[in-house]
Amino acid sequence: MKKLINDPESVVAESLAGLGAAHPDLLRVFEDPRYVLRADAPRPGKVALVSGGGSGHEPMHTGFVGLGMLDAACPGEVFTSPTPDQVLAATKAANGGAGVVHIVKNYTGDVMNFEMAADLVAEDGISVNQILIDDDVAVEDSLYTAGRRGVGATVLVEKLCGAAAEAGAPLAEVVSLGKRVNEASASMGVALSSCTVPAAAKPTFELADDEMELGIGIHGEPGRERVSLRPAREVVDMLVQPVLDDLALGRGDSVIVFVNGMGATPLSELYLVFNDLRARLGTEGIAISRCLVGPYMTALEMAGCSITLLRSDDQLVSLWDAPVRTAGLRWGA
Amino acid sequence: MKKLINDPESVVAESLAGLGAAHPDLLRVFEDPRYVLRADAPRPGKVALVSGGGSGHEPMHTGFVGLGMLDAACPGEVFTSPTPDQVLAATKAANGGAGVVHIVKNYTGDVMNFEMAADLVAEDGISVNQILIDDDVAVEDSLYTAGRRGVGATVLVEKLCGAAAEAGAPLAEVVSLGKRVNEASASMGVALSSCTVPAAAKPTFELADDEMELGIGIHGEPGRERVSLRPAREVVDMLVQPVLDDLALGRGDSVIVFVNGMGATPLSELYLVFNDLRARLGTEGIAISRCLVGPYMTALEMAGCSITLLRSDDQLVSLWDAPVRTAGLRWGA
Repeated sequence: MKKLINDPESVVAESLAGLGAAHPDLLRVFEDPRYVLRADAPRPGKVALVSGGGSGHEPMHTGFVGLGMLDAACPGEVFTSPTPDQVLAATKAANGGAGVVHIVKNYTGDVMNFEMAADLVAEDGISVNQILIDDDVAVEDSLYTAGRRGVGATVLVEKLCGAAAEAGAPLAEVVSLGKRVNEASASMGVALSSCTVPAAAKPTFELADDEMELGIGIHGEPGRERVSLRPAREVVDMLVQPVLDDLALGRGDSVIVFVNGMGATPLSELYLVFNDLRARLGTEGIAISRCLVGPYMTALEMAGCSITLLRSDDQLVSLWDAPVRTAGLRWGA
Repeated sequence: MKKLINDPESVVAESLAGLGAAHPDLLRVFEDPRYVLRADAPRPGKVALVSGGGSGHEPMHTGFVGLGMLDAACPGEVFTSPTPDQVLAATKAANGGAGVVHIVKNYTGDVMNFEMAADLVAEDGISVNQILIDDDVAVEDSLYTAGRRGVGATVLVEKLCGAAAEAGAPLAEVVSLGKRVNEASASMGVALSSCTVPAAAKPTFELADDEMELGIGIHGEPGRERVSLRPAREVVDMLVQPVLDDLALGRGDSVIVFVNGMGATPLSELYLVFNDLRARLGTEGIAISRCLVGPYMTALEMAGCSITLLRSDDQLVSLWDAPVRTAGLRWGA
């Protein structure tokens, strides 16, 4: 295992300490229980957005804490759900009295622990609503999931709901927006290589030199099938077809596009993938209203990418363009 | 070779086409000769900054074209210098009548081709000054260099000179600033794995499972020595000691810190490295005025990182904080 770490047991704590030291203007890092809080939280009267999940997907979620996105994030150990006490502490700390939204990727442990925390804070009179993200069209059930997995749409929901909450939208509106964005999003990913969880010290799975895993999960969970290596434009077609089908997208529609890097794939390849994707969408008569290209929801040092499409409209584009100022995503602020 | 590409011959063109399509608000991509131009260039009366070099280091340089940074970038083939006609065309297109600055990393081919282009535009009455970047303390001469290589300081010079030019500084001042930043910067990197140039189709070098290459270049050129894997804090000490020595930094000094990812190393590890680095600098009594942590000057999918320190002062901090709006670096705009 070749990693720039000191001890597999302390990678999350040490990395978060670095994040906190690098961005004191944006966020504060708490340990025991562990969570990351927006520097100016709680914001009285603002709906608070709290997310979290296993570590190893950085910048998601800790890198999305800040103006126009999350109020708090709960990082679990690598590829491990955060505990209820982390979510509880983050929820209380982020609460500004206008309600809290939990943005939860659909993995069994995440869902259970966020719900347990929501039940506990309800006793304190804090209203919590959950937005469950399940945009991955690759598989119906999965190694860690009943139902579809939550992947790329998470980043879009956090950005768009973050903008709405920043603009003063009430709890019900933020929740309804998040659910709408999740339903209007679909994703699929591909891996060209595995990743290695520090505590496991060996690759999560093996892929032959001429193989890719299509429909991969962000923890290396199996996807739809193993196929032979092929040109990027064929990979793009294999990823985007199920997404187009799922959303019933066609001529005249417009989409927000997210080409996500899994970690080790160079940015140049992600732009190349975006280039093939826009050609394909052009052929379909689908317009691209906005796009995001880069490694925003990674799987440690996995090579590969995912494609997320979100059916867009004027409201979503306007929320997309709103200022965001986080360690991982920043514009207009 | 596992890459998301269509054809090794066209990776740069296809990737740039994607970049251009993703960021029409920031930049325009030209082919034949190939360069990337700021969307609103030329800007009359503004000193124009032009950089470039081999591709494969993205987001550097093409991702740094935009407000507060570069006016144009000339991407060569992967790990290959841009040709004089690329630099010539970019220089002419970026020229706003107040002079042009070439920011050139010290590699023999880059230096020669930028100088040839500068001679050619001089015939058209365009004043070109060069800032040569040679901040890598790892080796004195190298596979592709007479003298030290240009690495991480390039990003800092492009940011800081970009801010000065944006604020209306005249040519001589921008050039003098760039030279000062280069002289006040030093860098050293480490590789945990090789990368594979698409046209070569095999790894640039081999590293055993328990080895790292200390003092690596951003094209996989040999560094100072191969050493066994060790904890991140020891790696940080081995990287930062020659940097501290070179700049004669000590108690009471302050620095701008750049922890750069080489490509495949997860962001979480880069923040962990930053955490060890700030501990070490704290021990030395050196303050961190600003920091940048992330994969900004990559070597395709190489695993590893580099550390750059720049002796800072109020002027540099103020230029650092000035707005920047590029595909690869963005704040305050």
